[in-house]
Amino acid sequence: MSTVLLNKISEVKKEINNWKQSGYSVGLVPTMGALHRGHASLIKKAKETCDKVVVSVFVNPIQFCPGEDFDKYPRTIENDKKICEELGVDIVFAPNAKEMYGENSRLSNTELTFVCPPYNFVDCMCGKSRPGHFDGVATVVLKLFNIVKPDFAFFGQKDAQQLFIIKKMVKDLNLDITIIPCPIVREDDGLALSSRNSYLSEEERKNALTVSKALFYIKELYDKGVTDTSILFDSAISILDKNIELEYIEFRDFSTFEKVKEVKNNTLAAIAVKSGKTRLIDNIIL
Amino acid sequence: MSTVLLNKISEVKKEINNWKQSGYSVGLVPTMGALHRGHASLIKKAKETCDKVVVSVFVNPIQFCPGEDFDKYPRTIENDKKICEELGVDIVFAPNAKEMYGENSRLSNTELTFVCPPYNFVDCMCGKSRPGHFDGVATVVLKLFNIVKPDFAFFGQKDAQQLFIIKKMVKDLNLDITIIPCPIVREDDGLALSSRNSYLSEEERKNALTVSKALFYIKELYDKGVTDTSILFDSAISILDKNIELEYIEFRDFSTFEKVKEVKNNTLAAIAVKSGKTRLIDNIIL
Repeated sequence: MSTVLLNKISEVKKEINNWKQSGYSVGLVPTMGALHRGHASLIKKAKETCDKVVVSVFVNPIQFCPGEDFDKYPRTIENDKKICEELGVDIVFAPNAKEMYGENSRLSNTELTFVCPPYNFVDCMCGKSRPGHFDGVATVVLKLFNIVKPDFAFFGQKDAQQLFIIKKMVKDLNLDITIIPCPIVREDDGLALSSRNSYLSEEERKNALTVSKALFYIKELYDKGVTDTSILFDSAISILDKNIELEYIEFRDFSTFEKVKEVKNNTLAAIAVKSGKTRLIDNIIL
Repeated sequence: MSTVLLNKISEVKKEINNWKQSGYSVGLVPTMGALHRGHASLIKKAKETCDKVVVSVFVNPIQFCPGEDFDKYPRTIENDKKICEELGVDIVFAPNAKEMYGENSRLSNTELTFVCPPYNFVDCMCGKSRPGHFDGVATVVLKLFNIVKPDFAFFGQKDAQQLFIIKKMVKDLNLDITIIPCPIVREDDGLALSSRNSYLSEEERKNALTVSKALFYIKELYDKGVTDTSILFDSAISILDKNIELEYIEFRDFSTFEKVKEVKNNTLAAIAVKSGKTRLIDNIIL
């Protein structure tokens, strides 16, 4: 069957109900579009795991903070659909904001029901500089879960904090959905794939390369026996280009999301920076 | 089949999955136990509407504010089960707090994912004096929805603000659940049934009767053509016993939840008071 592009929630629900009645397992890959090889790896994993695969393409207004790049975020639905067709996706669900949030005059918590992940998971790392971001993410993901009713949902490990928050939501709200994390996909030179890489000038891209280099250096030192996070922090800093604006480097247990002082196996080392005006994140599991 | 009492989420989910596979429709009546004729009317409606009926009995800690009556709230599970048996309920789901919220040391938004209804629905009426209450209600109700996966859920109209908030949540989060509101059930003398009526002394109960009397008087005046809410407000006040502590009298459109100045058909008149230390609510649709 060929890929169907649907814009209406009711159309998606109808098709999903048919699938459920036929006993098919359903996989969801939630995206904001501008699909790249990172998304493709999620979709491939979904195809391996599930009978039917839905890719949602929705630039979610409620997860952007004031002054962020909502308006200029790349929108490439024709190309996204083509990629989904090549990968054998069953449904591309691409609603607009009105379809998702109705006629509400303000897409805020004065008028809409929000899902609010716990402060301990939100008030740190990316959440510090993006207040409300993860409320917006959790809310739209829960809506997509309720629309698509997936058995499995696929999330990139690059957004590590998002991954923790979604897993926590699934547990706390008793959802019957298995969250499958998928490894970061990188360019040959190490840059983690991101739809926002398209914003980078040649110079900014060159500088941004020092982010993954810093992470690889942390891994190299850890493999040599260095476990003190303050040493690893300083070593990473020494690698970052001087034009890179550091937001954070954090070391957290990849299972519990707790901060660690001594790195051990399964520790996440995560970085957020700005290269020029573009905010980038990357991480590595030690 | 006789009524089964289950304490474990996994047991409930297993049974529900069997029902779903057999094509049964499922109704949920969420309660905090201490079942009375008001609850019974919800259960009867559920039995009329659905193939299978689940009654949840859970005194939900996260919807009680500090200093409220969580500890002394009546717990009468044996009697609740008996009532459910008589009414032909299929499952009584009575989890404890650990089963619902896990081993978290604090049942707060630092550690748990919450559902937060919109401020416009929360920051008024009962929400004013009970900060966080409706977050706790929405969160536990969504959890119950995800566990029981009902096609229909039944809520008493006495908690009118709760009913609005749950309907809003269902809409905002794209849940496939029909919310059925059920009329208030009263004692012969007019007192709205509530598990909290058991707290009332004879004197306090007598004073509390003036709450429903005030509402009936509002209705009487409206039926005679009085639509000005300030007149109706003052008239209601004149009926309330002087020992009743008024929290609010509000007039809202029963469809949109918007405040009205001129009463029309389908306006909700709602009162909250304290009689002694016991907080009571009541309302009437004009």
